[in-house]
Amino acid sequence: MAPPDRPSEPSVGWAPPRLDEIIRGRGVTALRVVVRVWTPAAVAAAIEDLSVDDQVIAFRLLPRDVATDAFEYLPVGVQEGLLRAMAKEDVGRILNEMSADDRTMLLEELPAAATQQLLNLLSPEERATAVKLLGYPEGSIGRRMTPDYVRVRPEWTMERVLDHLRRHGHDSETLSVVYVIDEHGRPVGEVGIRKILLADPSTTVAEVATEGVTPLRATDPEETAIAAFRREGREALPVTDSAGVLIGIVTIDDVLDVAQTAATEAQQRFGGVETLDEPYMEIALTRMVRKRAGWLVVLFFGEMLTATAMSFFEKEIERAVVLALFVPLIISSGGNSGSQSASLVIRALALGEVGLRDWWRVIRREVVAGVSLGLILGTIGFARIAGWSLFSTLYGAHWFLVAMTVGLALVGIVLWGALAGSSLPFVLQRLGFDPASSSAPFVATLVDVTGLIIYFLVAAIILSGTLL
Amino acid sequence: MAPPDRPSEPSVGWAPPRLDEIIRGRGVTALRVVVRVWTPAAVAAAIEDLSVDDQVIAFRLLPRDVATDAFEYLPVGVQEGLLRAMAKEDVGRILNEMSADDRTMLLEELPAAATQQLLNLLSPEERATAVKLLGYPEGSIGRRMTPDYVRVRPEWTMERVLDHLRRHGHDSETLSVVYVIDEHGRPVGEVGIRKILLADPSTTVAEVATEGVTPLRATDPEETAIAAFRREGREALPVTDSAGVLIGIVTIDDVLDVAQTAATEAQQRFGGVETLDEPYMEIALTRMVRKRAGWLVVLFFGEMLTATAMSFFEKEIERAVVLALFVPLIISSGGNSGSQSASLVIRALALGEVGLRDWWRVIRREVVAGVSLGLILGTIGFARIAGWSLFSTLYGAHWFLVAMTVGLALVGIVLWGALAGSSLPFVLQRLGFDPASSSAPFVATLVDVTGLIIYFLVAAIILSGTLL
Repeated sequence: MAPPDRPSEPSVGWAPPRLDEIIRGRGVTALRVVVRVWTPAAVAAAIEDLSVDDQVIAFRLLPRDVATDAFEYLPVGVQEGLLRAMAKEDVGRILNEMSADDRTMLLEELPAAATQQLLNLLSPEERATAVKLLGYPEGSIGRRMTPDYVRVRPEWTMERVLDHLRRHGHDSETLSVVYVIDEHGRPVGEVGIRKILLADPSTTVAEVATEGVTPLRATDPEETAIAAFRREGREALPVTDSAGVLIGIVTIDDVLDVAQTAATEAQQRFGGVETLDEPYMEIALTRMVRKRAGWLVVLFFGEMLTATAMSFFEKEIERAVVLALFVPLIISSGGNSGSQSASLVIRALALGEVGLRDWWRVIRREVVAGVSLGLILGTIGFARIAGWSLFSTLYGAHWFLVAMTVGLALVGIVLWGALAGSSLPFVLQRLGFDPASSSAPFVATLVDVTGLIIYFLVAAIILSGTLL
Repeated sequence: MAPPDRPSEPSVGWAPPRLDEIIRGRGVTALRVVVRVWTPAAVAAAIEDLSVDDQVIAFRLLPRDVATDAFEYLPVGVQEGLLRAMAKEDVGRILNEMSADDRTMLLEELPAAATQQLLNLLSPEERATAVKLLGYPEGSIGRRMTPDYVRVRPEWTMERVLDHLRRHGHDSETLSVVYVIDEHGRPVGEVGIRKILLADPSTTVAEVATEGVTPLRATDPEETAIAAFRREGREALPVTDSAGVLIGIVTIDDVLDVAQTAATEAQQRFGGVETLDEPYMEIALTRMVRKRAGWLVVLFFGEMLTATAMSFFEKEIERAVVLALFVPLIISSGGNSGSQSASLVIRALALGEVGLRDWWRVIRREVVAGVSLGLILGTIGFARIAGWSLFSTLYGAHWFLVAMTVGLALVGIVLWGALAGSSLPFVLQRLGFDPASSSAPFVATLVDVTGLIIYFLVAAIILSGTLL
C-alpha cells in the first residue's frame, strides 16, 4: 500500500523520517507506513542510531518481514547486542526467518555457548540447515552459501518456470537466474531471468539453458569464489558437494564483502598487525594495543639478534668505525627489496595468479630482479662514497675499498632481500598460515640479521690487511 | 534452438569442446551450435587460448551477439590485440554493440590516438555516449557507468512494466531492478524483479516502489561505490549527475572488479612498488625491474641520510662502540611501529572509516598506542641489557646507563614511528596522492633517520661524563 503521507516528489538527497521520534511517540501506524517503502538497508541504518532499548521496541513494532530483512543489514556487533536484549520468542522468530547465509555470518562470530543457545531456538528444519552450513570449515565457500534458490528441470516450459517462480521465488536469494538440474541433482545449466521473461512461453528450459558455468565447491576457500565471480561476471554461482550435487548458491554481494574483508586483513597482516576485526576508530585502545604488541614484541626479539650479530663484529667496528656508518643504509635496502617482493608475491597468491607449484619460477624471476636492483643500488652507493671522497676525508685513505665493500654488500643484500621476501609467503602458505603474515616488518627483520653478516663478511674479505 | 548433438547429461566437470579443432576444420555449423549454449565467459576463455589469427577467424564465424558478449569477457590486453588484427568493419560492429561500461574500460587503457581512431568507428549516438563516459575523471564512478537500464513511471501497472521489460529489456545491464523517475528525470524509487513478477498485474509502480536508495554521483570516486554496495546489498545502484537527474547505473560485478584492483594497487604501493598493472607472472622482467627500481632508488637516497646522521655521531661511536651495537634494533623498532600505524590508517581511509577531518582523533589514539608500545619494548630492551650484564662484561661497567639509554630511546622512537606512520597517509591524501604510497619502506626510511638522531641525543644526555 502506498502511504498516504508519502511525498509525491521526494528531494534528491533522500532524508529518512526520524525513527527515534516515531518510536518515542509510539506511532505504530506511522512507523509501519514509513518503513514499508524503505529499503532494508535504510531501515537498518535508522535502527542502528537508536539506543538498544529503542532498538528492541522498533523490532517489536516493525512488520515481521521488514524486521527480518532489516536485521540482516545490521553489523554483527549490533545484531549480538539486540539478540541479548530481545525476548526469546522475538529472537527465535528473527533467526528462523533470516536467510541462511546471513545467519551463518552471525552465528560464526558468537562464542560457542551462545551459538548453541540460538540453535536451540530454531525449528528442526532451520536448525539442520544452520548446523550443516556451520559444519563447513571457516573461510570456506560453504559458510557463505544459501540453500534458497530456484531449481528447474530441462523439460519445463517457460510458462511453468514463471509459474514456479511466482509460487517458490519468495525466499530465493536471487531471481536473476534459475538452475537446471539433472535427475541426480547435478547442475547442468542455468537460465537467466532475461531469457525467462523474453522467450516464448512454450519454449522449454533445455532449449534456452546456458552451459559452461563451472560450479564452486562448498569446501573450497572463499578466495576461489572471488576469482570465479570476476571471471564469470554473474550475480550468483552454483555450489556443489564433492559428489557434484547442487546444494546451494553464493551471491555476488556476499563475495564483495568477502573480498573487502580479505583485503583489510591482508593489509593489516602485511603491516605487521594482528587483524583488528573492528573498525579502526571503534576498537577499544587497549584491544588495539594488545593486537599490535604481539607482533611488535616477536619482531623485537628477532631483531635482538642484530645486536648479537653486531657484537660478533665489535672488534671490526672498533678498528674501522667507518663501517658502522653504513649499517642502517645497507640493512634497510635489503628490507625494502624484501618488502617489494613479499607484497608482489602475497597479492599474486591471493588473486590466484601464482600457486605453490610456481615457487621455482617465481624464485628465478626474483634472482634476476634482485641482481639487477642490487647492481643499481650498489652502483649508486659506490658512486656516493667515491664522490664524497673527492672533496672530504670522511671515509679515510682507503675510501676506494670502503666503497667497494658497500657496493658489493648492497648487491648481495638486495638479492637476499628479494629471495627472502618472495620465498616467505610460499613457506607460510605451505605450512598452512596466511601468506600475508610475511609482513614487511617480518621480512625486514629476517633480512636485517643476515644482511649484517653479509656486510661484515664482505668487509672482512675486502678490507683485510688494510682497515681490518 | 537446442543443438542436436548436445549430450543429455553433461559431466559435472564441464569440459568445453576444443574450439581450435573446430576452427581448423572450419566447422561453422558445429561452432555456431556449440557456442550458442555456452556462457560468454566460457566462449571468451576458449577464444583466449587461440592464436591471434584463429581468434580473428573465430570472431568472424561466431554469431554477432555471441561475439560481442564474448569480447566483453576478454582481458583488455587480448581485446587490444584482436582489434589491431581485425578488419575495420568487424571492429566497428563489436565496438558499437559492446555495453558502454565495458567499452569505457577498453578505451581508457588505449593510447589517445588509438582511442580516437576507434571512436571514429562508432555510430554518432554510441560515440556521444562513449565520449560522455570518457569525460568523467579517471577513477570516478562515471567511468564505470552504463546508460543501459530500465526506467518506469510511478503510475504504470505491473502489467505495463512487464510489457516494457519484454520490449526494452534486451540491452539493459540488469533486469533485477527497474528505476522509478519523476517528471524531471530524478530517481524516486526502484522496483525489484521479485515484486514485478509476484505482484498482481494491476498494481501500480507507486504502490510497490522502494525508497531510500541514495544514488551515487557520477563524479564521486569509485571507492564510494564499493562502500555503498556493501551497505545497500544490491545488484545495481543508480547514478545521478550534479542536478540529481538519473543518468545511468553501476552494477555490482564491475564494483567487485574495482575493489579487487584497488586492493592490488594498495598492497603493491604499500610494499613500496609502483603498481604493476599486469599479473606478476606475465609482466616482462625488465618492466618489473623498472617499476621496482623507481621507489627503491628514491628510498635509497633518503636512507643515505642515515650515513650522514651516523657520521655526525662518529666521535660518540668511536668512544662508545657499544652504542653502535643497538643501532639496527632501535631503528627497526621505529620502522615496525610506523608500518603498523600506516597499514591501519591506510586501510581505514580506503574503507571510509576515517576521513581527513579525523586526523586529530587518529593522532591522539596513536600517541596513547605509541607510548604504550614504546614502554613495552623499552622495558624488554632494558631487561635484556641488564640481564646479560649479570653474566658478561659485553656492555661494560656502565651497563646500567647503556640500558637506560636504549630503553628510553625505544619509547621515543616507537612513539615517533606511530606518529609518522599514521600522519603520512593523511598528508599524502591531503596533497592529492594515494595514501597507500606511504609504504612500509617509506615510513621506515623516514623513521630511520630521525630515529638515529633521537637515539644519539638520548645517549648524549644520559652517557655524558661517563662513556661520552
